Amino acid sequence: MKEKAVVIYSGGMDSFTILNKALLEDYDLYALTFDYGQRHNKEIEYAKRVCTELGINHRIIDITAINQLLQSSSLTAGSNVDIPEGHYEVANMKSTVVPNRNMILLSLAIGYAVDIEASKVYYGAHSGDHAIYPDCRPDFVHAMNKVAKLANYKPVDIVTPYLNSSKTEILADGLAFGLDYGKTWTCYNGREKACGKCGSCIERLEAFAENNAIDPLPYES
Amino acid sequence: MKEKAVVIYSGGMDSFTILNKALLEDYDLYALTFDYGQRHNKEIEYAKRVCTELGINHRIIDITAINQLLQSSSLTAGSNVDIPEGHYEVANMKSTVVPNRNMILLSLAIGYAVDIEASKVYYGAHSGDHAIYPDCRPDFVHAMNKVAKLANYKPVDIVTPYLNSSKTEILADGLAFGLDYGKTWTCYNGREKACGKCGSCIERLEAFAENNAIDPLPYES
Repeated sequence: MKEKAVVIYSGGMDSFTILNKALLEDYDLYALTFDYGQRHNKEIEYAKRVCTELGINHRIIDITAINQLLQSSSLTAGSNVDIPEGHYEVANMKSTVVPNRNMILLSLAIGYAVDIEASKVYYGAHSGDHAIYPDCRPDFVHAMNKVAKLANYKPVDIVTPYLNSSKTEILADGLAFGLDYGKTWTCYNGREKACGKCGSCIERLEAFAENNAIDPLPYES
Repeated sequence: MKEKAVVIYSGGMDSFTILNKALLEDYDLYALTFDYGQRHNKEIEYAKRVCTELGINHRIIDITAINQLLQSSSLTAGSNVDIPEGHYEVANMKSTVVPNRNMILLSLAIGYAVDIEASKVYYGAHSGDHAIYPDCRPDFVHAMNKVAKLANYKPVDIVTPYLNSSKTEILADGLAFGLDYGKTWTCYNGREKACGKCGSCIERLEAFAENNAIDPLPYES
């Protein structure tokens, strides 16, 4: 019997790459997508399609109730804060930080892993987010991993293959696997085509440019 | 302006004692009760009443969606597993363990603390649970506290005044404060009177007996 692993899979580029990487490593995969009322719900549709195609177990967990608790972020639906445009920078991107988001999502993923007797949780932390998001930094991931080994009868291991890689390096890996990034959604706005202007689109387009590759996704501009 | 603190408050004895202890320490308190579909929903009604009486901010967060993820516990509603009777023991109480429960609840409480700019989260871990629940042990709490200091722009401190105290000692403290434990609910079954037979009732009654005190709550037997 194959070893089970949970993959936190948003439908975006990084977790799509990790999902495929874990698949190549021959785990019995359980993809986990969180619906926390984010505006870019389209990511979830992309996630669903990919898991169906790959024949991977997929759970979409509605955790919008968390918005009752956490109301200061612009990423959650119903917020009046505008999504900042332009490159990620601490000053204007701080409003996209959902308080303690990654600790919450990892805790749930670890709970799921314990429940299905998986020993690993794949999680797409990468160096591009270190500057802005404290809960994407190696120190956080290492501390969280210690907790994951202590919190239950059987330890769970948080696996972060791209912890010290840039988005460009992750994409390079995925392109080398032959992955089709037309199956991923990144844009913070959920319109028909990607906006090409939000921090997330700009980062994505930069990663493609730095790989001398063309993003197969259609853009508004 | 008073410093803000979040208190994870179930409506049970231990968190009731902590809530009152924190109140004596003169914090601006934000009580947080989780509705995770537990059978003993009555606890929540007790929590509500106490917060209204004390004039404390109170949020009840519906996290029943988590049951979609975690299905092996007997504590969650709709489960077919019977609640074990008798004293807490690893063998028969393991089924009351919600996988990774405390990491999930603490993560949410920390997120809430960050959102309202509270620097502390009070949490009722105590020594009576150490043997059975890995996520009530000092090692877990210390590791979790390290994470809480790293995960957000401002560190949050997890405060566990009774980490190394028994239930009997917690009760002794509360009785010394003059608290009325008729305002707390502990029983795993949600009937009109406490059952007096489940592990939770037995522990509670033992704590009263060891304090030479009478539990003001009415019991079936």
